[in-house]
Amino acid sequence: MPYQDIFTQTQAASRTFTSLSAEQINSVLRDVAAAALENTPFLLQENQKDLDRMSPADPKYDRLKLTEARLQDIAKDIENVTTLPSPLGEVIFQKELPNGLNISKIRVPLGVVGVIYEARPNVTFDVFSLCFKTGNACILKGGSDAEFSNNAIIKVIHAVLEKHGITPHVATLLPVEREATQSLLEAVGYVDVLIPRGSQGLIDFVRQNAKVPVIETGAGIVHTFFDETADLEKGTAILFNAKTRRVSVCNALDCLLLHQKRLTDLPALVAPMAQAGVELFADAAAYQALRAHYPAHLLHPAQEEHFGTEFLSLKLAVKTVGDLPEALDHIARYSSKHSEAILSEDAANIEVFLNAVDAAAVYANTSTGFTDGAQFGLGAEIGISTQKLHARGPMGLEELTSYKWIVRGNGQVRG
Amino acid sequence: MPYQDIFTQTQAASRTFTSLSAEQINSVLRDVAAAALENTPFLLQENQKDLDRMSPADPKYDRLKLTEARLQDIAKDIENVTTLPSPLGEVIFQKELPNGLNISKIRVPLGVVGVIYEARPNVTFDVFSLCFKTGNACILKGGSDAEFSNNAIIKVIHAVLEKHGITPHVATLLPVEREATQSLLEAVGYVDVLIPRGSQGLIDFVRQNAKVPVIETGAGIVHTFFDETADLEKGTAILFNAKTRRVSVCNALDCLLLHQKRLTDLPALVAPMAQAGVELFADAAAYQALRAHYPAHLLHPAQEEHFGTEFLSLKLAVKTVGDLPEALDHIARYSSKHSEAILSEDAANIEVFLNAVDAAAVYANTSTGFTDGAQFGLGAEIGISTQKLHARGPMGLEELTSYKWIVRGNGQVRG
Repeated sequence: MPYQDIFTQTQAASRTFTSLSAEQINSVLRDVAAAALENTPFLLQENQKDLDRMSPADPKYDRLKLTEARLQDIAKDIENVTTLPSPLGEVIFQKELPNGLNISKIRVPLGVVGVIYEARPNVTFDVFSLCFKTGNACILKGGSDAEFSNNAIIKVIHAVLEKHGITPHVATLLPVEREATQSLLEAVGYVDVLIPRGSQGLIDFVRQNAKVPVIETGAGIVHTFFDETADLEKGTAILFNAKTRRVSVCNALDCLLLHQKRLTDLPALVAPMAQAGVELFADAAAYQALRAHYPAHLLHPAQEEHFGTEFLSLKLAVKTVGDLPEALDHIARYSSKHSEAILSEDAANIEVFLNAVDAAAVYANTSTGFTDGAQFGLGAEIGISTQKLHARGPMGLEELTSYKWIVRGNGQVRG
Repeated sequence: MPYQDIFTQTQAASRTFTSLSAEQINSVLRDVAAAALENTPFLLQENQKDLDRMSPADPKYDRLKLTEARLQDIAKDIENVTTLPSPLGEVIFQKELPNGLNISKIRVPLGVVGVIYEARPNVTFDVFSLCFKTGNACILKGGSDAEFSNNAIIKVIHAVLEKHGITPHVATLLPVEREATQSLLEAVGYVDVLIPRGSQGLIDFVRQNAKVPVIETGAGIVHTFFDETADLEKGTAILFNAKTRRVSVCNALDCLLLHQKRLTDLPALVAPMAQAGVELFADAAAYQALRAHYPAHLLHPAQEEHFGTEFLSLKLAVKTVGDLPEALDHIARYSSKHSEAILSEDAANIEVFLNAVDAAAVYANTSTGFTDGAQFGLGAEIGISTQKLHARGPMGLEELTSYKWIVRGNGQVRG
């Protein structure tokens, strides 16, 4: 394995954390936050080298760009992480067995966390601080577009680690070569989990090629069902919020499921969306109900392809359903199991929906826009898992840990 | 995908569980236990067809064989599962947010659990009962050697499901063709987790080829460190138990790490092992200490290959270390992170060891033979995870579940 020496070093470095206290960890992180500010000119200068290689018209340009204000936000985020309680060492379970063995389950770091991401240099600080807080060494593979920025950031981090007498191998930035990605995907025995952060294409690539355990984050094909009894006023505000608050995020609404008895309310329900420029892709019944009311240039007949699409833009599919079971069937078929909502004043229907829908976050009478670590009170978030193993939905500090069983005996043997 | 129709059916069937109560689930399982007994002649007859195709000298023959007594044990195990509390619906976390949203984390089934295993027909009953109890549909891929047995078992299970009006697709047995395995490994979006049960070769194959999330179970390269202060009498019993209780299991001892100051005690420490016929592979210092005491035909100089080997037989590596840190380094290098132990009367050393060793189960002054779901009080076990994601160590019912976030609002939108 070409990068085996690097992986071996990182894995060895991960053992450092068994002798670092939560306070020492926070102290390092505070110094990293300070160093991010102190090194602003250097970081911006290196970031500019990356920017110079990219057209400002490229949609990635803005994500790549660091500014003084953004570095201040980054420093604040790291400071915030230091204020969160450490999950490490938590006794999850403890019991004295009849044979006198004392058994407990203790929260421990995962070990080595790999993260593959694209041209967002802020992720480098972000992933480092969350991994370091949770006692994990990290192996970072950033996009080649951000090479200068990431090298500069890791240099700043390493200088702080060195000052604290901690090996820099706890935060390893891989070179931009593609072979490094391939090695990371295959680093069985060295990497405990790999988290891809970025486009669906990146996530698919990682899932297809990884030999190490992966947590998938990302894609949200999000529905909201407007039930027969739903409140029109609340529903109008919620749908508008879920669709337009930020269209590029995974919790944004993609499909409105409308109870057929509420077709007459549909024009009012989506009226604010017209003003925001939302294009609707409506099934036949919804199209019919809207055609005299919604701007013609924003209203299109829905094709099959519009269902099950994550738009990430000012577009919304509208589907009319006969009843709640039909809505549930549609969601089961097209949902990416991220965030799903029901708007209803019928308590029984709400319970059926919350129970039946298989998604990371299921909502009643509120906006799917709340699917977010900070909103859920997790303090920080490394991603939103769309799989069911290990972590589901927003992943905070606890989701960057594992546990081990500790058994204390006094000579017991098994019969 | 060739088996897509089957996977689609199983996934759809997994939704059945949202309308089954814990009592209904237990009632089905009790009937399956009864049916296993009632159909003993049929099951033994079909099992005999498999046995007829295999040489009785084949080490797999005994694992493949069903008997009346084994079917009684299987029925008892299923009955036992019905007595365990259901983890489903457990409220893991609940909170009222400042904006009035009520947020909770609820335990739910994983969805569809795939299990690939070898010629052990008991696994078919075992996996079905644990998955059904936890509200999961299962896709079973058994070894071709057990084809008749598995078909018979699934027929018995399906008859019970039918009697209860439950779709048989909640328990899907794939055909024995290799293509079925390949499809299962790639059933992204249909299978929530895949658990290989069997040899290291099978586990490696699954890890290398799976596109769906995998939980690795199995391999245990197990060490016990006999410290400077360890009690000789207790240590002798513990080491003998850990090595000889059952040599073919993953928690069996593979390497004794001996503090150099205890070399003079080594002959007494391993004396009972000689009687059990344990072959020792000793490093130079240990070999020297043993040569006048241990039977010559059972004592060999250790080669590098003997460290980091899971023997699964009456063989034991012996390595002399200068101190605790050296023992920790050896474990970090060779352990498979399954079960590791320290024998010591030094409380400080014990704490250092328990804290520093990265393994699913870490023991002080007792036998690694305790790494087992039943011993840990989990009631039942689907395997012992050697990875750190999702589940570590013995996996019981809870480890066959995920969770979802439920958020109840009253018109809240995100700012």
